[in-house]
Amino acid sequence: MKTVEILSVGTELLLGDIVNTDAAYIARQLAVLGFPLYRQTVVGDNPGRLRAAIDEAFSRADILILTGGLGPTCDDITKEVTAEALGLPLIEHAPSLAAMEEYLRLVGAPLTENNRKQALIPAGSTVFPNRCGTAPGMASVSGGRTAILLPGPPSELVPMFEESVIPYLSRFSDGVLYSLNLHLAGIGESAAEARLRDIMDSSSNPTVAPYAGEHEVRIRLTARAATRDEAERMCRAVKETVLDRSLREYFYAETDDPSAAADAPAHALLAALRERGMTFSSAESCTGGQIGARITAVPGASEVYVGSVISYSNSVKRGLLGVREETLAAHGAVSEETAREMALGARRATGADLAVSVTGIAGPGGGTAEKPVGTVCFGVADADGVVTQTMHFSPRGTRERIRLQAASHAMRMALKRLKEQK
Amino acid sequence: MKTVEILSVGTELLLGDIVNTDAAYIARQLAVLGFPLYRQTVVGDNPGRLRAAIDEAFSRADILILTGGLGPTCDDITKEVTAEALGLPLIEHAPSLAAMEEYLRLVGAPLTENNRKQALIPAGSTVFPNRCGTAPGMASVSGGRTAILLPGPPSELVPMFEESVIPYLSRFSDGVLYSLNLHLAGIGESAAEARLRDIMDSSSNPTVAPYAGEHEVRIRLTARAATRDEAERMCRAVKETVLDRSLREYFYAETDDPSAAADAPAHALLAALRERGMTFSSAESCTGGQIGARITAVPGASEVYVGSVISYSNSVKRGLLGVREETLAAHGAVSEETAREMALGARRATGADLAVSVTGIAGPGGGTAEKPVGTVCFGVADADGVVTQTMHFSPRGTRERIRLQAASHAMRMALKRLKEQK
Repeated sequence: MKTVEILSVGTELLLGDIVNTDAAYIARQLAVLGFPLYRQTVVGDNPGRLRAAIDEAFSRADILILTGGLGPTCDDITKEVTAEALGLPLIEHAPSLAAMEEYLRLVGAPLTENNRKQALIPAGSTVFPNRCGTAPGMASVSGGRTAILLPGPPSELVPMFEESVIPYLSRFSDGVLYSLNLHLAGIGESAAEARLRDIMDSSSNPTVAPYAGEHEVRIRLTARAATRDEAERMCRAVKETVLDRSLREYFYAETDDPSAAADAPAHALLAALRERGMTFSSAESCTGGQIGARITAVPGASEVYVGSVISYSNSVKRGLLGVREETLAAHGAVSEETAREMALGARRATGADLAVSVTGIAGPGGGTAEKPVGTVCFGVADADGVVTQTMHFSPRGTRERIRLQAASHAMRMALKRLKEQK
Repeated sequence: MKTVEILSVGTELLLGDIVNTDAAYIARQLAVLGFPLYRQTVVGDNPGRLRAAIDEAFSRADILILTGGLGPTCDDITKEVTAEALGLPLIEHAPSLAAMEEYLRLVGAPLTENNRKQALIPAGSTVFPNRCGTAPGMASVSGGRTAILLPGPPSELVPMFEESVIPYLSRFSDGVLYSLNLHLAGIGESAAEARLRDIMDSSSNPTVAPYAGEHEVRIRLTARAATRDEAERMCRAVKETVLDRSLREYFYAETDDPSAAADAPAHALLAALRERGMTFSSAESCTGGQIGARITAVPGASEVYVGSVISYSNSVKRGLLGVREETLAAHGAVSEETAREMALGARRATGADLAVSVTGIAGPGGGTAEKPVGTVCFGVADADGVVTQTMHFSPRGTRERIRLQAASHAMRMALKRLKEQK
């Protein structure tokens, strides 16, 4: 099996202006494809240091994936330095130039001389079209060394990787890899791992590995086989063995598609609603619309999602959701009583079949001895009534993490309610 | 000036199971302290490959900051391998052992033999106490090489860095680095760079560099000086020169804090509202709550943000926002007429001083010849009335990118409106 390294190019990474999510994304994809990855490197937009990093990486790995530095500006040198390292001349790639002209026409921007530079490719490269920007990606091969160059912006890199790079890399990979993710909530990674230790050690195909996400634990089963169907059958067989290790009670969804795996609560809830022909709404306080934003990030959400009320202030809780003044006065905005009225109010106001509510303290301020940061109350309302719950997420979590955990928990509560109905 | 490198140790990073936020955090701190950082590396929990990475890093840098691998398990090898690379024996550090016993007593856990391993330090190390966990951090020096070892969990690393590492590093630092970001919208990176080429080439302190974000262009000015104030003055002087290159019309915000720079539209809008003591709301269709989620991601948003209506379906547009049936029938949900009534409706329904509305086609489905994917209509309503606008974002953008661009544009429209009022 060929070995791979990731080389991220960008001074903004070295200054800590952006977090290297591209490297994590690519690493995850490589793991699924079965490529060993032993090192990731970040260097700035500096020709000498970039060249040194490329040469060192090729002394260890067969395939080098470079991200960033394909833009139109003079700081963007990744392609030039890589071509030099591979001993390949840069030539103009007519189809890329035409595609760029078309793209710029659509967005109503002029083609600058700088853009022309983006249509240059190392001679003989396989070009990966960029649907979401001007810089094409490419795979350049020389002397048994393969350099894969990808644009830095995730909105360009991710679609390009899934549409062009995975098919390109698959040729180096023997057989087909299929991954089935089992999503668990309410149990920690080490507790889950303790129950699976022997399976993890004994099963090599499929491999069994637990991963701690921001708001859940994911058990990933990855099988290699001649066909996808065969690999999937192998994973499904092991799935039951895994869940039988007293994990079934924590299991709420399975995914085999990376975009769904990245937000299992939203995808699983949408699927369950669609299956039942039910509509959905939310009443959000501390999550500030994140449930709506995550649900509508899934294409086709409009089949089941009608809308939400973000009731950040008490006046909006009263005005749009009909939460009673007395309820807020007696129990406070962060209470199961308020959550109950928010969920009922969202269902009434939007006409949805099912509505969830979230009201809590995400911090950093606003915590009290009685209701510390991380206290979040939830409600789920449907035709049969409303259920409520209070969770205490770690007050050591950041504001963003607590909000993410709360939105995910609300969607899992709604999913649980749907399954109970059936 | 001593040069620094970051070496992150952890197989979970190589598998893409976690994003390397530690490296971004440390890089940002080093930039503020004024240390040049030319490379970041990630390796797994493998003694041979870790040792090689340490030796290579010390061949380039004076100070190596290692994160991760200080835990109690046998996978945790960072300290052992580093001590070996520095030629220092490991000795038990009594105060660390005592502190660990005290910490474990507090959390009600027993002291295991594995924990004892965490109290070992390379001889002569400066120890950094760990308030939030068991593994102490340390700085180990040998032959002019300094290795700084820090625990991987951000909840342990961040407090330790701020309490112990910054004071330790400050002794080596001459001067500070300050960055000022100028955020531009409505112009491409290459067009912006074309106007700045000569300044970028001629100005080395501050440096001037454009970056293409997901929904804007950012010009970053970075100055090094004896004090932060002096560095900031140097950046502000160059700012005017930059904007005078016919960029002022695209300039909408400046930031000097990475968290604000990561979402300038939300931070700038919140600041402008706070300044004017005005409250804010949104009516969101295709953005599905993203404006609310991004605004409330900023601590203290409740001072100005009251809430929103996510009107994904026409029935919610009518019911909660009072959009007229005739308007939807005559012009469609994606029209400036509907956007106008949505903005007015959100302002009325929430009682906010200012409200924005977004209704558009994010795709992948739903586009028509007349209204292709990427067509988004906006409204901004305040006491003086309502303004509307239609934008055409690239139909080749992903659904997520179009939604991001639309939410950002809506917030910038609201910001523009506020500035016009003044």
